[in-house]
Amino acid sequence: MQKPSIPKGTRDFSPFEMIRRNYIFDTIIRVFQLFGYQPIETPAMENLSSLMGKSGEESDRLLFKVLNSGNYLSRVDENEIKEGNINNLTKKISEKGLRYDLTVPFARYVVQHRNDITFPFKRYQAQAVWRADRPQKGRYREFYQCDVDVIGSDSLLNEVELIQIAENVFSDLGIEVIIKINNRKILSGIAQIIGEHEKLTDITVAIDKLEKIGLENVNKELMSKGVGRNAIELLQPIILLSGTNNEKLHKITAILHSSPIGLKGIEEVAFVLDKMNKLEINASIDFDLTLARGLSYYTGAIIEVKAKNISFGSICGGGRYDDLTGIFGLPDVSGVGISFGADRIYDVLLEENLFPVDVQSTTMVMFANFGKKEEAYCLPLVSQLRKSGINTELYPDPAKLKKQMNYANKKNIPYVILIGEEEVNSNTMTIKNMNTGEQNRITVSEVDEGSIRKIFDGAT
Amino acid sequence: MQKPSIPKGTRDFSPFEMIRRNYIFDTIIRVFQLFGYQPIETPAMENLSSLMGKSGEESDRLLFKVLNSGNYLSRVDENEIKEGNINNLTKKISEKGLRYDLTVPFARYVVQHRNDITFPFKRYQAQAVWRADRPQKGRYREFYQCDVDVIGSDSLLNEVELIQIAENVFSDLGIEVIIKINNRKILSGIAQIIGEHEKLTDITVAIDKLEKIGLENVNKELMSKGVGRNAIELLQPIILLSGTNNEKLHKITAILHSSPIGLKGIEEVAFVLDKMNKLEINASIDFDLTLARGLSYYTGAIIEVKAKNISFGSICGGGRYDDLTGIFGLPDVSGVGISFGADRIYDVLLEENLFPVDVQSTTMVMFANFGKKEEAYCLPLVSQLRKSGINTELYPDPAKLKKQMNYANKKNIPYVILIGEEEVNSNTMTIKNMNTGEQNRITVSEVDEGSIRKIFDGAT
Repeated sequence: MQKPSIPKGTRDFSPFEMIRRNYIFDTIIRVFQLFGYQPIETPAMENLSSLMGKSGEESDRLLFKVLNSGNYLSRVDENEIKEGNINNLTKKISEKGLRYDLTVPFARYVVQHRNDITFPFKRYQAQAVWRADRPQKGRYREFYQCDVDVIGSDSLLNEVELIQIAENVFSDLGIEVIIKINNRKILSGIAQIIGEHEKLTDITVAIDKLEKIGLENVNKELMSKGVGRNAIELLQPIILLSGTNNEKLHKITAILHSSPIGLKGIEEVAFVLDKMNKLEINASIDFDLTLARGLSYYTGAIIEVKAKNISFGSICGGGRYDDLTGIFGLPDVSGVGISFGADRIYDVLLEENLFPVDVQSTTMVMFANFGKKEEAYCLPLVSQLRKSGINTELYPDPAKLKKQMNYANKKNIPYVILIGEEEVNSNTMTIKNMNTGEQNRITVSEVDEGSIRKIFDGAT
Repeated sequence: MQKPSIPKGTRDFSPFEMIRRNYIFDTIIRVFQLFGYQPIETPAMENLSSLMGKSGEESDRLLFKVLNSGNYLSRVDENEIKEGNINNLTKKISEKGLRYDLTVPFARYVVQHRNDITFPFKRYQAQAVWRADRPQKGRYREFYQCDVDVIGSDSLLNEVELIQIAENVFSDLGIEVIIKINNRKILSGIAQIIGEHEKLTDITVAIDKLEKIGLENVNKELMSKGVGRNAIELLQPIILLSGTNNEKLHKITAILHSSPIGLKGIEEVAFVLDKMNKLEINASIDFDLTLARGLSYYTGAIIEVKAKNISFGSICGGGRYDDLTGIFGLPDVSGVGISFGADRIYDVLLEENLFPVDVQSTTMVMFANFGKKEEAYCLPLVSQLRKSGINTELYPDPAKLKKQMNYANKKNIPYVILIGEEEVNSNTMTIKNMNTGEQNRITVSEVDEGSIRKIFDGAT
């Protein structure tokens, strides 16, 4: 029989990975809750009518579509099949798809439940999404998104709060980060000032690549998109703007003095930077005029977090969108949110060796099994440890001790308790520290909650 | 525009539901870890070759199938479509499906990763499964399973441990339960003794319904399945066996004295009951000869947990299977496991009003917002509370106080801190207990970690 496998681009997560992934999700979610955000979950399958046409043609193509149940051909006539128009046929045989991201389901959720939601609605959502993308290193067909958004409030305090959340999460995870901020209104102002307002998207897409491809190639791209020579020249000092955040704010204010929308964007960035300054957070915050992040639906703040000293890009990002729910017929609901990339954060923590030592095992103690008599003797002791909240197992078979110790080693269990015939007769137990090899024998009567805690609290 | 909706049989989970569901999952998983079980996760989509033909025709019919990406008709020729053989066509246009349960993916996982797994493998898995079932009250097309299994050990200590886990979980959740146990080998012995061994499945399916349909209907069903009159008569005292567990063990031993397999089953049940007795657990354990639970793949212990005083059936169940991985070509790996029904547990807790008071909100304190000046004054205080680990929010807009208080009420936030102009000038804050309405004013300088903890620790 063939060895079983899973669909390409998907993954099994072993205990090794799950323990570390749970540490990441738990840390992120604890911070979300610290800031008053509440969880929601939406179904994996959405109606294709909700998913299609929301994030562009490319996204529609990447949707996994679910075949209708039963005789899915019943609504299809022969000619339609002969025509071979895949798009038309698909509509007839498939009504549901797997969600592509958490943003569209969130918008759908807000509109569908708007009468039950108290706004501003501060929610987080950590669930899998699916994309029929070509699998490659670091890109999967099933992966997790971890989104936090507040919707129904245009207060800039929300932007401040989301940056605090990012700072808090990465500080808790021990990752040094640079938090970049920008504002779509400033980008609009720039496009306006250089006389190329209708080329806003092309311009931002191009300057977004500065770090990756360099100034010369950015200019080439601008030219190829039909941005005028004069406009490109005007753009140079803006792209290369340097100095402290305050210096950059001053310079760009001077440049955009005649653009009301540009000035509005500057005012928003200044507000956020001022509040962050007063909160004395540790992470460096960098006002970066080249930050655009795809841009398509951002209308205000743009936020991106990068790990210092790591080559690959962002580990968290987001921004403000003024019309998320408009796609479902509810206009004028402003929201702002960021999304954490769990897979990339995992890679950073592994590469930089930043997982805490105790994020290795979920078991603290294993009792070795020496046979029926010893096993019966151990059972109440095992229960006692568990009642004290200590994760404990009893090896289920009287296998060779070497095999049992190997099991404990493989599972990274820090302590093994040995109770053989000698220990049973003398009412003692031998505790072996698996890291140091040190062994201690204590009498069983000493095992009350306090003494047990003392032994294992300093563990690992 | 039409109000958006989700596919029938699927659900959105609001914060109200998520907070309560997380409480259930967290409680269950904490106990799993207490007993040394480790998490795994598998992808939502599996190859249909892994899923099909594993749990019977009915399950195959209920699989959600995912349409191949791209031009899925490229491998289909015209005649195949004309034939209208849905099964053949489906094979050509769909290679993946959503998992139907966690059992088949677990078996696939064990076989695929067998060289990396240290046996006995104690794993838990809490993920969604999908079934294209007819949706009805309490039955969904997307729902969660929460499975805990140990594979690669035939020690009966595992059965003992799983019963302890069930007892521990429901005791932590405050649900009074009856734990029923039986053994497939005893059922085999009974079928043998009454001379209807080849009708084992029919007999167990029928007597499994005793509680639901009564003895008379059980007998009718047995007759309709062709079980002989004599055999049915022999079966009566067995079905109606009563008394304490020990009394029942004695009586059934006498009845099955000539069936080696029956006696083996009795020995196994006696071992488990003896160990449970010595561990002095609270739940009542009931040796129930009519318990069968579908049976198809159980080979030893059968376990079911029912909530006392609740009409609807089991909230947890499982058993031993000796050949789970055989379906993927790895024979002779014995396993035993149980599965928790999160949706039903949720219903029991809600119906019996058993959710703890503090499982209502994730936020402890909200600062009201009285305007720009007060907001700036509050920000560092908000940060200070969060640094002390207290889930805190600041209302993002200076909205009418009534609106802000309504928001706090709707979110079940137990405390609101009011800092208006007067408080700013006198360096004080007013703390309002939202349950009692009581208000206290304290000076801001008093707000250190200790005093804050004191105020909010007794909360709700």
